[in-house]
Amino acid sequence: MKKKIGIIGATGYTGSELVRLLTGHPNVEISLITSESRAGELLSDVHPFLQGIADQKLVSLNQIDDYDLDLVFLALPHGVSMDFVKRYGDRSFKIIDLSGDFRLSSGGVYEEWYNMKHTFPEGIERAVFGCPELFSDEIKNATLVANPGCFPMSAILGIAPMVSGGFINTESVIVDSKTGVTGAGITAKAVNLYSNVNDNFKAYGLKRHRHTIEMQEILGRISGKETIIQFTPHLLPVDRGILSTIYARPTQKMNEESLIKSYKEFYSDAPFVRIRKLAPAIKDVRGSNFCDIFPAYDERTNTIIVISVIDNLLKGASGVAIQNMNIMFGFDETEGLRQVPLNP
Amino acid sequence: MKKKIGIIGATGYTGSELVRLLTGHPNVEISLITSESRAGELLSDVHPFLQGIADQKLVSLNQIDDYDLDLVFLALPHGVSMDFVKRYGDRSFKIIDLSGDFRLSSGGVYEEWYNMKHTFPEGIERAVFGCPELFSDEIKNATLVANPGCFPMSAILGIAPMVSGGFINTESVIVDSKTGVTGAGITAKAVNLYSNVNDNFKAYGLKRHRHTIEMQEILGRISGKETIIQFTPHLLPVDRGILSTIYARPTQKMNEESLIKSYKEFYSDAPFVRIRKLAPAIKDVRGSNFCDIFPAYDERTNTIIVISVIDNLLKGASGVAIQNMNIMFGFDETEGLRQVPLNP
Amino acid sequence: MKKKIGIIGATGYTGSELVRLLTGHPNVEISLITSESRAGELLSDVHPFLQGIADQKLVSLNQIDDYDLDLVFLALPHGVSMDFVKRYGDRSFKIIDLSGDFRLSSGGVYEEWYNMKHTFPEGIERAVFGCPELFSDEIKNATLVANPGCFPMSAILGIAPMVSGGFINTESVIVDSKTGVTGAGITAKAVNLYSNVNDNFKAYGLKRHRHTIEMQEILGRISGKETIIQFTPHLLPVDRGILSTIYARPTQKMNEESLIKSYKEFYSDAPFVRIRKLAPAIKDVRGSNFCDIFPAYDERTNTIIVISVIDNLLKGASGVAIQNMNIMFGFDETEGLRQVPLNP
Amino acid sequence: MKKKIGIIGATGYTGSELVRLLTGHPNVEISLITSESRAGELLSDVHPFLQGIADQKLVSLNQIDDYDLDLVFLALPHGVSMDFVKRYGDRSFKIIDLSGDFRLSSGGVYEEWYNMKHTFPEGIERAVFGCPELFSDEIKNATLVANPGCFPMSAILGIAPMVSGGFINTESVIVDSKTGVTGAGITAKAVNLYSNVNDNFKAYGLKRHRHTIEMQEILGRISGKETIIQFTPHLLPVDRGILSTIYARPTQKMNEESLIKSYKEFYSDAPFVRIRKLAPAIKDVRGSNFCDIFPAYDERTNTIIVISVIDNLLKGASGVAIQNMNIMFGFDETEGLRQVPLNP
Repeated sequence: MKKKIGIIGATGYTGSELVRLLTGHPNVEISLITSESRAGELLSDVHPFLQGIADQKLVSLNQIDDYDLDLVFLALPHGVSMDFVKRYGDRSFKIIDLSGDFRLSSGGVYEEWYNMKHTFPEGIERAVFGCPELFSDEIKNATLVANPGCFPMSAILGIAPMVSGGFINTESVIVDSKTGVTGAGITAKAVNLYSNVNDNFKAYGLKRHRHTIEMQEILGRISGKETIIQFTPHLLPVDRGILSTIYARPTQKMNEESLIKSYKEFYSDAPFVRIRKLAPAIKDVRGSNFCDIFPAYDERTNTIIVISVIDNLLKGASGVAIQNMNIMFGFDETEGLRQVPLNP
Repeated sequence: MKKKIGIIGATGYTGSELVRLLTGHPNVEISLITSESRAGELLSDVHPFLQGIADQKLVSLNQIDDYDLDLVFLALPHGVSMDFVKRYGDRSFKIIDLSGDFRLSSGGVYEEWYNMKHTFPEGIERAVFGCPELFSDEIKNATLVANPGCFPMSAILGIAPMVSGGFINTESVIVDSKTGVTGAGITAKAVNLYSNVNDNFKAYGLKRHRHTIEMQEILGRISGKETIIQFTPHLLPVDRGILSTIYARPTQKMNEESLIKSYKEFYSDAPFVRIRKLAPAIKDVRGSNFCDIFPAYDERTNTIIVISVIDNLLKGASGVAIQNMNIMFGFDETEGLRQVPLNP
Repeated sequence: MKKKIGIIGATGYTGSELVRLLTGHPNVEISLITSESRAGELLSDVHPFLQGIADQKLVSLNQIDDYDLDLVFLALPHGVSMDFVKRYGDRSFKIIDLSGDFRLSSGGVYEEWYNMKHTFPEGIERAVFGCPELFSDEIKNATLVANPGCFPMSAILGIAPMVSGGFINTESVIVDSKTGVTGAGITAKAVNLYSNVNDNFKAYGLKRHRHTIEMQEILGRISGKETIIQFTPHLLPVDRGILSTIYARPTQKMNEESLIKSYKEFYSDAPFVRIRKLAPAIKDVRGSNFCDIFPAYDERTNTIIVISVIDNLLKGASGVAIQNMNIMFGFDETEGLRQVPLNP
Repeated sequence: MKKKIGIIGATGYTGSELVRLLTGHPNVEISLITSESRAGELLSDVHPFLQGIADQKLVSLNQIDDYDLDLVFLALPHGVSMDFVKRYGDRSFKIIDLSGDFRLSSGGVYEEWYNMKHTFPEGIERAVFGCPELFSDEIKNATLVANPGCFPMSAILGIAPMVSGGFINTESVIVDSKTGVTGAGITAKAVNLYSNVNDNFKAYGLKRHRHTIEMQEILGRISGKETIIQFTPHLLPVDRGILSTIYARPTQKMNEESLIKSYKEFYSDAPFVRIRKLAPAIKDVRGSNFCDIFPAYDERTNTIIVISVIDNLLKGASGVAIQNMNIMFGFDETEGLRQVPLNP
């Protein structure tokens, strides 16, 4: 029997992307899609490209108890997700939260980086960080999964083999990331206006972007040491994709061949990580759940450079969320996620 | 048992798109992929985004007789396809040709519009025009299918209900089309250079584009009358997609409601045609095999305006090719073609 | 002595473009720049690219009488401009209004196409339509100029030689226009969100776009006959530029050579119209005040096709506004407007 | 009397950009434009946007001695420039070379990084590095100026105040640069094909890009110490612009205020450097000769982050070339270069 899925909040990009992916998944059915602002309308009124594919009616969240659900995805803004978990967390369905509300180690850290009080720190205790390449055992048994942030996903997968192998200085890792504009969400504002993005490029969120602490905490957990990340996000004139250029200093004699070997071994069981022969481009993974990684070592400067690319809406959000669902339900990890990248 | 497929010419966009789609098709397997310029290399060396998905070795066409094939797709330039059919047309495999070589009514017409002699007019006799919405019965029994041109596909599907219904003046239909740059192929030349296309827009091929005659002949066949098309293509700064804005004059009293009804009826059995409630955008069909159509009538000027959009690499090339293959093999028409549009 | 200029409303694109152009004009100085929402801030706070170039303080409109002005540009939304003219129209300064408020022939027509009442029809009587290629004598003596709409500018310049020459059927002219996104203004809304525009293309405003009537009235005035335009605007994924593809039927025997000759003669004194040898692209005029026109005749279908391109913020708004100002002050018509197109 | 200018090689972007800028320069006239591949044609045949602006006939280089020239710009590929200087370097005209042939310290270094022999090392002795913000005294008296590379220009201006002030560790500076596609030149090749660049992003030239050594040598000259740069260029889907994100470690106690102050002082006499209040975007300088710099200090990680943006065709090529010309002729440094950025 198919598992019954709820999608809480469907007017944004992660919501429509969940629908796009789940309509092709053989073991689940979407029972409920909620929206407060567009309740009563069809999903295809909000996202016209879904006409004929997902014409389901949107209902208000307060009808959720009318539905028998096995799992819900929270495609909600941070701050709103914690309210949902506080209120509905004891229901029988599992929860995968795509917001940042349950990713950090404590309410205090959350408050420091998100500039708002965490109203349900109990959820933090219960939540498992949903990076399947690192924590699949925990995810298998989780009832609340904190889906990773998009930048952290690209950075953590790019850095994990190095901190796990213990061969870099964890006190000064630089993550210079470049993201497509869907990372900023669907709400119209100056930052994602066409004329401000097209033929343009800029850095933003210097020094204090929230994803910094998420990277630091997860990588610190793997390395067992404090990990300090200098993270600089930039806005690309593209819809989808994150490319992170990572700079780290080895703490021991290094060569490129052994570096590449350590990456291949680390990800030997990971169906969605491809160690690439050449520097990858973001379009190489567009529309797919792949994370492509290219590790290099520059002898001249004694620096490791790692390039990591993902589609921020797939491996950086809805794709990895479904991968987590597959693990939680004991499905094949790649079920519903075998899309070939759309290139060009 | 799976059908064995050959792809002749895999270094271009239609070739890689065929591979992308066929890897998800449950009833076929790709036995042979040829390339003369890159023989001996892996397909993923040519198209790195296919690493881990399609690492098959490319072989030279002259090895084709070593393979037992049920069907081949010709992803070759026009002029080259006719040579293939001349030479290998008597083998047991069916052929779907994506070039323009077998679409027109005679060698003479071909020569007039393509400025080159047709060296295998016998193939024209044998070929069926591969528009499944119009000629599925013929396609079912065909052994050589001439896959439609990208512009004709968008124009013919947009105009067919009107000429079939006999309610427009067929002597002056205007098709103002706008295409993405993949229509110009993968070869680097000034016309598809980034700086010539980005933030830019222009008309080209005025008055004498080859697709004009293809539209005229097919629509004329449906209407039983001479059909004259003024066709103006333009180059959009996008990768994929064709939008055609069609202007026609009704020959009888018209209203919008009955116009829309006639479109819905005409396409009631067509799984890939969506009659849209609002004017469609090309991203509404990107990466999918849909043709979205929006018919409108302007009382003020007594003009019918029809907007039609497709992804030129799917419904305008490789997607409809696979749809034709499904019909020829008796598979479900939508097999391997259920991709949801990638938007944004 | 330099003329003193006021710019009323400077937070939008036409406002910043006026500043960009006027800073290089030797005969004027910008005395006043108003903004209600950002009064008290610097212009370069609103448009950071102007840092060091135009750091002038924005003041509220109600301080206008503190300034001694020779001319004001109204870079205001329609509906707001008419209030300004009603209130300040009797001051000594000349007015160039960039909105649609004074372009049409009467308050009644305005109400029909703009869906709002015109509160100052007296202004319509006084206003001169600011198309310098057609009405420079009237502009010379005007005190209130209605600057043309962007689409009308491209269409009128493309069609005027034909209706003036009397050789086309004015009852069915098709204007299929494609515009960059700055035409929709600077306010963040779904229509100009990056992810809705990028890699995308669509028609909008079918059948009832306001610029239709503006084209019809002006062209009708030149031809002396009723002129009916089927106008379909489309949204391009570019910042700037309009390309109009115009289709018309000759009423007499036609040939391409004489057609081109009639265009060259019609614009022989127009410094900003270039009759092009090849079909122009919008980037050929980007950042400049040129209108590039390419007239063609298709014997096969007996149809005239004219391609016309402008930069919608220059020749379609702020550039032609300054051209009008030059004529009103008796300056060289090209003063401050000699920018070479920025390509690529 | 106007100075007589020759442009050697006009079919590329730097050539057409020189023409665009020089047509507005009051003190010079373009006497000669050469092209070998297009000799006999008009410049506006090669660059149609220049129709009516620069319709000059292109002549072959071997006619150069028929012209009386005061200065020539070499808009030639590296390797070809050195041949020109070897052959014509003793003529009376001054030379500004836009290639990389005379920027490095010796033929040996050139050979190591450019993988070709330098055939005229005498030119290297004679040449002055054309960075006006650092070496204007030398430029004033130079007869051969080596115009800086585009990446070095953005990096050197961003780093110079720090190495000049002596407050960073020069042994590990990271320059993570992102460039528009015109940096790759006008020749059609896979790397600058629209579909490979649009909606895409990637790193290239890792570890061994030629501009690395140019940065190292010039910054080393200023600091008096060996300077090691880790330089990673990336390709942006934009026409023009370079943004460099620079990471450096202070060698002494640092605070942001004093950092900014040191930048303002260092560039107090530089008309084209703007120290920005907020992180700049590349469109803030597009079409202009500005270099916008934003210095920041992150206390948490003890790292200096500097963002530097230029238009690669202006401040990164043709703009700074004209600035150098102005200095060499004793003109106002900003003559012909007062274009306001084109934004949007």
